[in-house]
Amino acid sequence: MAPPRRDDDLPIAALLAPDILALLDEAPQDVAGETEEMHPADLADVASAIPRERVADFLLALGTDRAADVLEYLDEELRTEALETMTARQAAQLVTAMTPDDRADVLEALEEDVADEILSAIPAEQRVETERLLAYEPDSAGGLMTTEFVSVPSAQRVEEALASVRAMARSGRREAMYTIYATDAQGRVAGVLSLRELLAAGEGTTVGEIAWSEVVTIPATASREAIAQATAKYDLVAVPVVDDQSRLLGVVTVDDVIDIIQEQQSEEVQRMGGMEALDDPYMQTGFFTLLRKRAGWLTVLFIGEMMTAVAMGHFEEEIARAAVLALFIPLIISSGGNSGSQATSLLIRAIALREVRLRDWWKVAMRELPSGLLLGALLGGLGLLRVVAWQRLGLYDHGPHYVAIGMTVMLSLVGVVTFGTIVGAMLPFILKRVGLDPASASAPLVATLVDVTGLLIYFSLALLLLRGSLL
Amino acid sequence: MAPPRRDDDLPIAALLAPDILALLDEAPQDVAGETEEMHPADLADVASAIPRERVADFLLALGTDRAADVLEYLDEELRTEALETMTARQAAQLVTAMTPDDRADVLEALEEDVADEILSAIPAEQRVETERLLAYEPDSAGGLMTTEFVSVPSAQRVEEALASVRAMARSGRREAMYTIYATDAQGRVAGVLSLRELLAAGEGTTVGEIAWSEVVTIPATASREAIAQATAKYDLVAVPVVDDQSRLLGVVTVDDVIDIIQEQQSEEVQRMGGMEALDDPYMQTGFFTLLRKRAGWLTVLFIGEMMTAVAMGHFEEEIARAAVLALFIPLIISSGGNSGSQATSLLIRAIALREVRLRDWWKVAMRELPSGLLLGALLGGLGLLRVVAWQRLGLYDHGPHYVAIGMTVMLSLVGVVTFGTIVGAMLPFILKRVGLDPASASAPLVATLVDVTGLLIYFSLALLLLRGSLL
Repeated sequence: MAPPRRDDDLPIAALLAPDILALLDEAPQDVAGETEEMHPADLADVASAIPRERVADFLLALGTDRAADVLEYLDEELRTEALETMTARQAAQLVTAMTPDDRADVLEALEEDVADEILSAIPAEQRVETERLLAYEPDSAGGLMTTEFVSVPSAQRVEEALASVRAMARSGRREAMYTIYATDAQGRVAGVLSLRELLAAGEGTTVGEIAWSEVVTIPATASREAIAQATAKYDLVAVPVVDDQSRLLGVVTVDDVIDIIQEQQSEEVQRMGGMEALDDPYMQTGFFTLLRKRAGWLTVLFIGEMMTAVAMGHFEEEIARAAVLALFIPLIISSGGNSGSQATSLLIRAIALREVRLRDWWKVAMRELPSGLLLGALLGGLGLLRVVAWQRLGLYDHGPHYVAIGMTVMLSLVGVVTFGTIVGAMLPFILKRVGLDPASASAPLVATLVDVTGLLIYFSLALLLLRGSLL
Repeated sequence: MAPPRRDDDLPIAALLAPDILALLDEAPQDVAGETEEMHPADLADVASAIPRERVADFLLALGTDRAADVLEYLDEELRTEALETMTARQAAQLVTAMTPDDRADVLEALEEDVADEILSAIPAEQRVETERLLAYEPDSAGGLMTTEFVSVPSAQRVEEALASVRAMARSGRREAMYTIYATDAQGRVAGVLSLRELLAAGEGTTVGEIAWSEVVTIPATASREAIAQATAKYDLVAVPVVDDQSRLLGVVTVDDVIDIIQEQQSEEVQRMGGMEALDDPYMQTGFFTLLRKRAGWLTVLFIGEMMTAVAMGHFEEEIARAAVLALFIPLIISSGGNSGSQATSLLIRAIALREVRLRDWWKVAMRELPSGLLLGALLGGLGLLRVVAWQRLGLYDHGPHYVAIGMTVMLSLVGVVTFGTIVGAMLPFILKRVGLDPASASAPLVATLVDVTGLLIYFSLALLLLRGSLL
């Protein structure tokens, strides 16, 4: 195995790390000025590339607002470590400058006593707001939303609304301000309009007149899936979160939605691979947590796969009589597994993106059946060719009945691939129907199901076709 | 297999379809008014739920601007069919009202002669713009960008810049206007600022003074991957696309980026499942296209898996002498495949999200090795238990040497699971290193590699441990 090694996969900004580190040693007061045009995400790359014990100094040298921006892009482990290195006062100053949703996320990741100490050093207004956000489940809409948004009374005039947007922009509050919510006298969401529509509106009109009255909202308890779905479907840049009285609590912004979609993707891939989804990045997941998340499904699949030994047990006598039959067992069962894994990954995505609905299962089955038969015929033909060619070329002696053996292999492949394709295509529907994630261990689950059935198909065909000759 | 059937997975808006259809029959002039508060995405759901031959009528009843909005959310097949049903003049009117990037996408999906006919009926200015966009690869930044964006000279004063943003908002151009680009005298991108920053700026300053001079830009030829990466990394709501002179050509907006990320996810899952990625949704992909995309990898894997028959051929004599050994072949090789598929899906995601870099391969290997050994020991213990328990409980007679057989099974499982875990973890690094997508057929590829090696491990251990007794 050639060692994979390449050095150009580091972020470009990290190349600046040595220079910035030198400046931090010699003239820390110049760090902020020298880096003022860099994007916070790039400064986070720099922070990841300098020695860990200097990260806190580096952040403090950037000044409060810049450091707060950089913290939002820093990976959780490094961020936590940096904040724990500072005094509670310094840390409190930084997190106060963060957006409310990120502030809550940061504190959530810290040890409880450290978080409490920092929280108590935050000004009262922000502290109350943060404590309110911390009360929501971190993965719910409430836990993900920011409380910085613009809402104006429906009855307000466009000019006044625009003035309050400008005031908000000047106050340094930074988040969801491109969507403006109109509220009725009871504080309920009555409409929505974009900043573009507000800018375009003629003077003298009220906000209520130009706002859209059908607002897509989600409850604070909504799952990440519901948020991602609403965003993707309606092309929203911000999803408003409401309480059970339809009062606006906050807004989930599109940058958080992109993070959500990427996390979901990781979980889907991990589940498909036959393990429990991880909560943290691979390198930040503890060794034993990782082991536990893998051992569960691996054991379940192993116990399922024990059925193959039971199935084989029934044919031990046939194998003893015609050991040549054993040769093709791995080839046949793995072909069923491969075709099943194709079908299952196709349908997992089609169901996740709602290209296919549960009610379409029969249409899908009627499409996968001929696919399975044709793919099976292709592999079956290759299998027959293999047996006959090896025999004729003198590469292996399958005995005098090699044509019958070849036919058995061929027909088994047709059967196994067709069965694998159908089971693979239907399993995501069944998992979804019973309320499970269609991706759960689906590929290995299909393989296990198909292995047992594949053996039964193969040996039954062998008994049928080879009785009287080989068996 | 219980038929998965549930009726509540239809979009809610589709429930309105019968009412709207009735209105379309009786008073088509009222359709626009009755639906004016509905979101275009919901109207697209309605369009999908009414009979296909009525979709064109429904769109025309909505009026040009609304219909253009709905077209953007309609699935490609239905959209194409509806536009082909209309006169070229009607279709041209609708696509002219769409945003330039969506207009180009729509025309790209039509038959060439239909597209040409519609294009020739579009006003000259929009036609030229559309033809320019059509010249880019559909999947490149050039093909995905919109040409509706705001750029102002760096030297312009804030008030004037704000006035041109308001004028643009009033003109009905709808896209990337929350990010404003400052250009120098040569028309090159010199800075970027958000609409928020423009609104917050004091009067009298120039745009250049408040803009950020380090702008994240991508070339028109950039891949979808590069766009998605830039957006996720820098939390952009719009990615500026430039030519080789750094002149601004257009902007890719975040709603398109979300679509890109979802498409990438589908491709990753499909590749992982051992097939070529599809370009279209499952139901819209032709039967034979689908077959072709599946047959390729399936054949490659089948040919690879033929090696198992070669490996088994070397042990035919041993199998004939001790058929009981064949019983555990599927169990052992599938355990290697399952542990490999776990490891590979873990690392595919870790590499894709850059949690792990190529240079980390050794660190990962040193983490996966003990994982593999422990997981192997777990399954090996279960395997030994199975053999001994079945024998003692009288469920199966493995012969007098059952303890030695159990030990062979156990040690083989430790070896196979460890090997599967390491191969599964390293394969994504190797695929990435040689420039392939780490997800390419990785799970089935690992399974194939492990099947052959698993057989060799099993039979070698059997020869070692059972020689003189069973063999």
